[in-house]
Amino acid sequence: MNKTNHTEERTILPEPTIRRLPWYLSYVRMLDNMNIEYVSSTQISNELNVQSSQIAKDLSYLNIRGKTRIGYEVHSLVKELENFLGFNRQHDAVVIGTGSLGTALMQDHGLVNYGLNIVAGFDVRGEVIGQTVDGVPVYDISELEAWQREHGVSIAILTVPVERAQDVADLAIASGMTALWNFTPYRIKAPEDVVIANTSIYAHLAIIYNRMHNTIIDTNKQQ
Amino acid sequence: MNKTNHTEERTILPEPTIRRLPWYLSYVRMLDNMNIEYVSSTQISNELNVQSSQIAKDLSYLNIRGKTRIGYEVHSLVKELENFLGFNRQHDAVVIGTGSLGTALMQDHGLVNYGLNIVAGFDVRGEVIGQTVDGVPVYDISELEAWQREHGVSIAILTVPVERAQDVADLAIASGMTALWNFTPYRIKAPEDVVIANTSIYAHLAIIYNRMHNTIIDTNKQQ
Repeated sequence: MNKTNHTEERTILPEPTIRRLPWYLSYVRMLDNMNIEYVSSTQISNELNVQSSQIAKDLSYLNIRGKTRIGYEVHSLVKELENFLGFNRQHDAVVIGTGSLGTALMQDHGLVNYGLNIVAGFDVRGEVIGQTVDGVPVYDISELEAWQREHGVSIAILTVPVERAQDVADLAIASGMTALWNFTPYRIKAPEDVVIANTSIYAHLAIIYNRMHNTIIDTNKQQ
Repeated sequence: MNKTNHTEERTILPEPTIRRLPWYLSYVRMLDNMNIEYVSSTQISNELNVQSSQIAKDLSYLNIRGKTRIGYEVHSLVKELENFLGFNRQHDAVVIGTGSLGTALMQDHGLVNYGLNIVAGFDVRGEVIGQTVDGVPVYDISELEAWQREHGVSIAILTVPVERAQDVADLAIASGMTALWNFTPYRIKAPEDVVIANTSIYAHLAIIYNRMHNTIIDTNKQQ
């Protein structure tokens, strides 16, 4: 029932590498749009402030080799990165909590370029249930389990108020979802085999405030 | 002219500590709302899956002491955390790029609870310039420098298309902004004294996809 299953073997990457690969991708996508044919790791290094030995190491996980003196073929590198990162495959997801952030994600057409296809929203508020956001239907959260039995989506995006985070996560997991993208500042507890990615924008604010009033920055820790 | 300057001394914290403190805050805020008076580091530990020795260490940066056998006074801990993290002070910011994500941030009333006050938006699109989003005016990006001379805001939130990220960052910095909250997947180059926080939601997608197809998770690396 899972529409996003794949049969190919995939590599477990160190998380810092996974964080850097999308930087390389957005840079080489730009070069590709400018019809630039080749790029060296030195160029990527100068542009992105990452050591070129690190770039070579990160890219060694991919099925691509640079040519001596010329570098990587830009278009192939874009395709390889997209493929490797899973951005060229469709991953269906639901948004739970269709407030301002949830709605923004449902309207963000950029996400499709990163392989994310939001197919439904869920909420508790009567005024939004039965409506659509950018063509995507919003259902009553009480329908989640039944809906999920039919659709078998793997990814739940949690954009609920913080005090609902754990309940909604439990419900999503009980419904068979295996990956939670948590936008609340709450640290969700989940079984080991559930993937959780925390995107707590508020934690980043704390970092900004702390660094602003000191101006000592550890750029290696940026993220 | 900077409306968010403070005179107090502040401590440079390790970034992992700054990332955990907002977790503690959202948890103890919930307890406070439930009128619970005391919480121990063991309780916080069980709830948030962080070792209690780590919690005690993180909280030792704050001006608060737990009582033996009773723990921390919840309401005081909320206030101390808010104060320490800067969430109880107003930090003015502008949003550059009022697309779906920028607009969502302008409409997110939750940010005020974390000390962020968005006072203006900037864009290049004629149809949004001169409009307001939730009462906040949107100006032409060409007016940024002049506007900034008058208002002296420190924080610029970058929600522009990726290919505009560096240009807009350069403009914000030239205008005197000292902290950039970068939501684009582009790795911005900036002088050392400019604070940059990268909230690249796309990088988190790559992590989800990679982990989903493997289900080996390093929970220490969650974030």
